Amino acid sequence: MKRIEIFDSTLRDGAQGENVSFSVEDKLNIARALDGLGVEYIEAGNPFSNPKDAAFFQRAGELRLERAHLVAFGSTRRRGVRVEEDKNCAALLAAGTECVAIFGKSSDWQVREVLGATPDENLQMISDTVAWLTKSGRRVFFDAEHFFDGYKHNPYYAVQTLRAAFDAGAHKLVLCDTNGGCFPQEVRRITLEMEQQFPGAIGIHCHDDTGCAVANTLAAVQAGASHVQGTLIGIGERCGNTNLSTVIANLQLKQDYHCIPNDRLVRLTPTARLLAEICNIHLPHTMPYVGKSAFAHKGGMHVDGVQKNSAAFEHISPEKVGNRRQILLSEVAGRAALAAKICEFVPELSKDSPELAALVEKLKELEYEGYQFEAAAASFEMVVLKELGRFLPFFHLELFRIIGEQDTYNRHMASAMVKLRVDEQYEITADEGDGPVHALDRALRKALEVFYPTLAGVRLIDYKVRVMEAGKATASMVRVLIESSDGAHSWTTVGVSKDIINASIHALIDSMEYKLYCDQMAGRLMRKERTQ
Amino acid sequence: MKRIEIFDSTLRDGAQGENVSFSVEDKLNIARALDGLGVEYIEAGNPFSNPKDAAFFQRAGELRLERAHLVAFGSTRRRGVRVEEDKNCAALLAAGTECVAIFGKSSDWQVREVLGATPDENLQMISDTVAWLTKSGRRVFFDAEHFFDGYKHNPYYAVQTLRAAFDAGAHKLVLCDTNGGCFPQEVRRITLEMEQQFPGAIGIHCHDDTGCAVANTLAAVQAGASHVQGTLIGIGERCGNTNLSTVIANLQLKQDYHCIPNDRLVRLTPTARLLAEICNIHLPHTMPYVGKSAFAHKGGMHVDGVQKNSAAFEHISPEKVGNRRQILLSEVAGRAALAAKICEFVPELSKDSPELAALVEKLKELEYEGYQFEAAAASFEMVVLKELGRFLPFFHLELFRIIGEQDTYNRHMASAMVKLRVDEQYEITADEGDGPVHALDRALRKALEVFYPTLAGVRLIDYKVRVMEAGKATASMVRVLIESSDGAHSWTTVGVSKDIINASIHALIDSMEYKLYCDQMAGRLMRKERTQ
Repeated sequence: MKRIEIFDSTLRDGAQGENVSFSVEDKLNIARALDGLGVEYIEAGNPFSNPKDAAFFQRAGELRLERAHLVAFGSTRRRGVRVEEDKNCAALLAAGTECVAIFGKSSDWQVREVLGATPDENLQMISDTVAWLTKSGRRVFFDAEHFFDGYKHNPYYAVQTLRAAFDAGAHKLVLCDTNGGCFPQEVRRITLEMEQQFPGAIGIHCHDDTGCAVANTLAAVQAGASHVQGTLIGIGERCGNTNLSTVIANLQLKQDYHCIPNDRLVRLTPTARLLAEICNIHLPHTMPYVGKSAFAHKGGMHVDGVQKNSAAFEHISPEKVGNRRQILLSEVAGRAALAAKICEFVPELSKDSPELAALVEKLKELEYEGYQFEAAAASFEMVVLKELGRFLPFFHLELFRIIGEQDTYNRHMASAMVKLRVDEQYEITADEGDGPVHALDRALRKALEVFYPTLAGVRLIDYKVRVMEAGKATASMVRVLIESSDGAHSWTTVGVSKDIINASIHALIDSMEYKLYCDQMAGRLMRKERTQ
Repeated sequence: MKRIEIFDSTLRDGAQGENVSFSVEDKLNIARALDGLGVEYIEAGNPFSNPKDAAFFQRAGELRLERAHLVAFGSTRRRGVRVEEDKNCAALLAAGTECVAIFGKSSDWQVREVLGATPDENLQMISDTVAWLTKSGRRVFFDAEHFFDGYKHNPYYAVQTLRAAFDAGAHKLVLCDTNGGCFPQEVRRITLEMEQQFPGAIGIHCHDDTGCAVANTLAAVQAGASHVQGTLIGIGERCGNTNLSTVIANLQLKQDYHCIPNDRLVRLTPTARLLAEICNIHLPHTMPYVGKSAFAHKGGMHVDGVQKNSAAFEHISPEKVGNRRQILLSEVAGRAALAAKICEFVPELSKDSPELAALVEKLKELEYEGYQFEAAAASFEMVVLKELGRFLPFFHLELFRIIGEQDTYNRHMASAMVKLRVDEQYEITADEGDGPVHALDRALRKALEVFYPTLAGVRLIDYKVRVMEAGKATASMVRVLIESSDGAHSWTTVGVSKDIINASIHALIDSMEYKLYCDQMAGRLMRKERTQ
């Protein structure tokens, strides 16, 4: 089993992705998470170009990483400046990391056109910088920028740039498909040639502009590359970098390579989801291995098949990567699928329990009305618990009223009033918002927090509206999906009505009831008396 | 240049994706869009298992497709039932399509374990079904389910299933990586062997569970496959199907294959975005070729590089696929593309018209606010006409007010009041509805019909709501798309606001203005005086 160095660049190349922006605190949290997963190298930023990155390296001592090495990133020295006097190189040393990655161009066209240097100057810049950093005790990774494009255009020069870095003491020569335009066969062929010239020293760095970053990386590894760069959830410039969660699972579960400690593979899914949370992006549900839908079965035949034998429609067991199977409840789901789903949280119920038939009827009725539970497991759980008489309401909404208007000065206003009851105590309050649903959400929370202070920690993280029957337009049934989070967990609820306001309030109420129910089950429900 | 058949399964396998659910109207719109892109085959659904799909095929005559062939999908006949008496097979014929796709298992393990049939029975089921459909005049695609897994386990049997379909007259034998667990090298090797046995008859169908669907598909094509299945934006069961937008661009722009008419490549991005809108899903910004970030440059070096020469950090020009470069923080507009679009309805405007620069600014501003015109051509036209001073308003909305409430008896009410002005005449009225937007729609029409009786013939046929920035939930920006029809034509308008009510009224007003404008241009605008 061959060992592959995993080099994560979420904090550096990942930060080049659109809409991605990290605070220093975010960076520290991501570094901890990657270390916990067992990643070997964490490229943490460019201390010269970015003051936030410099601040990160100053605080890096707090991290006490178990296994990972931090890597500072920068360019080769500038043209016409001695390496000892180059500020970028000084910043790299000042970062105080054991390892350093520097990039230099491997395409003579790029050297002339973009860098404005001669090919020889560029070779000298590479050589000087690597030699100086090595002499200063650093382990140096040389990122050969535009290597594949350069090699296709002028292979002799591209190899010279690798030679310059290698002879100056670089630990790995990382072949970069900077523009992401390559395909697996050419990556395999070129990597094989480089591995023959620099045995054991070749790494790979791909981008996903042809949708082949993962396959290109696998092709390079099969051709001998022993070092893989990417970002755990694939974020990065343009279409993103190689998705390391996919690569690690592919190499370690399905091929004969070792990337992270075996007992850490189960952390792949939770770590990917944690990183998405910190980045404040939605982890695509369809992401291989770690996405929410990666092991979700919807088609009747597929649901039937996995229940007979999960290998029928799964290439690996989801548990191996810390993910889980989902049986989606769609129009086509049968009773067996429902029973399996319900038993996840009411284990004493079996396929033959008499309560199940009534429950199936109730769910079918709700689906007919337009409810869809495949994306709203929390609402599904609420319906089941209520139907089985296992849920005692925490509050009753007595009434609400919303007003939205545009006046003659074209100004918009939205406000909401709610009245609710907890046991025998009433709370009436109101709030305003950016629209009627927002106003209602705020007023409802405001009233409930009087009794249940933990609801203050809940925030709505997504809100989706779907109109169901085309042809009736604004009078159609509307389905609202709300995703909420309390920081530790997130859950999704659904509401259906002809009126978007009613649909929204159903989903909002379900969300709050679910949170209160979970707190109750975990013995941490707080219930305050109303102070008059 | 070798021709590749493109077979899109968005409406069938795509509908198996989590959170994907189509109305019949959605399906018709998707089929039109795929046809406009020049896709050759559109797999539209399973007429037997799904009544909605059967309804689609009944209405398919409305479509008048330019190039694409519709394909009905189903399974081989059931075990122990004669093909002439099999209801699934009857439904396939009743769909009335020229082409039919049927799936049958190619893995003997799956046949025994999941189907509960003997391997010989399965061969007979395949043979009977293909022969009967062929005899009935259909062009038959045989989807060899679990082909690769089956072949790795028992190559002899897997090939027998292909032989059964081929000898019975199947047009293509489609090798399916049903569980999505394969890698490019094995797909290449196995496809090559099959292509040698069945020259010219091999197709490929992949799933993305290892992140290699695109690379696997390319490997199969290089090994000789001449038919490619997938879904345009990659939706589908679990991690999704092969993303056809990526495959088409890879094959036709970067390799020597022909998939769709050359002049349609520029429609790749708008069609992908339109499909995402109809599916009501977020098109990932990082999707190769068609994503919003696919040609977005953020890193300083990269921005600098592309401004010197776009090839420095782009593997192709974004214009080739109808996308555009984005320089994040210092934006440059796609002026030529916009000019082309605007000239469709203002032919006297050219790329160099002085009005165009201001228009580009206005559109960029609106896009920044969250407007997206790909799916709302009528609103785009309204914006342009207004900006060019070519639109005289037909009415002014002076004010509106909506009230929604739930009383103590759990009864819901929604009502709206509007005041509008036409020339110097005012009309104030009110109405109620199934929700605030519905009430507003009715009140607005009621007031307008006083002056413009043709609006009585307009009805809203679809209404879609989309929340744009995740992470802020109910206070996010909301985009509303409204599709209207007057019986002869239909058009779509868009409104954006933090408040769903405001977004809706913008879209409603655009819709009515568009209808009045079209009537005016066609010389059939009727304008009544208000009778007191």
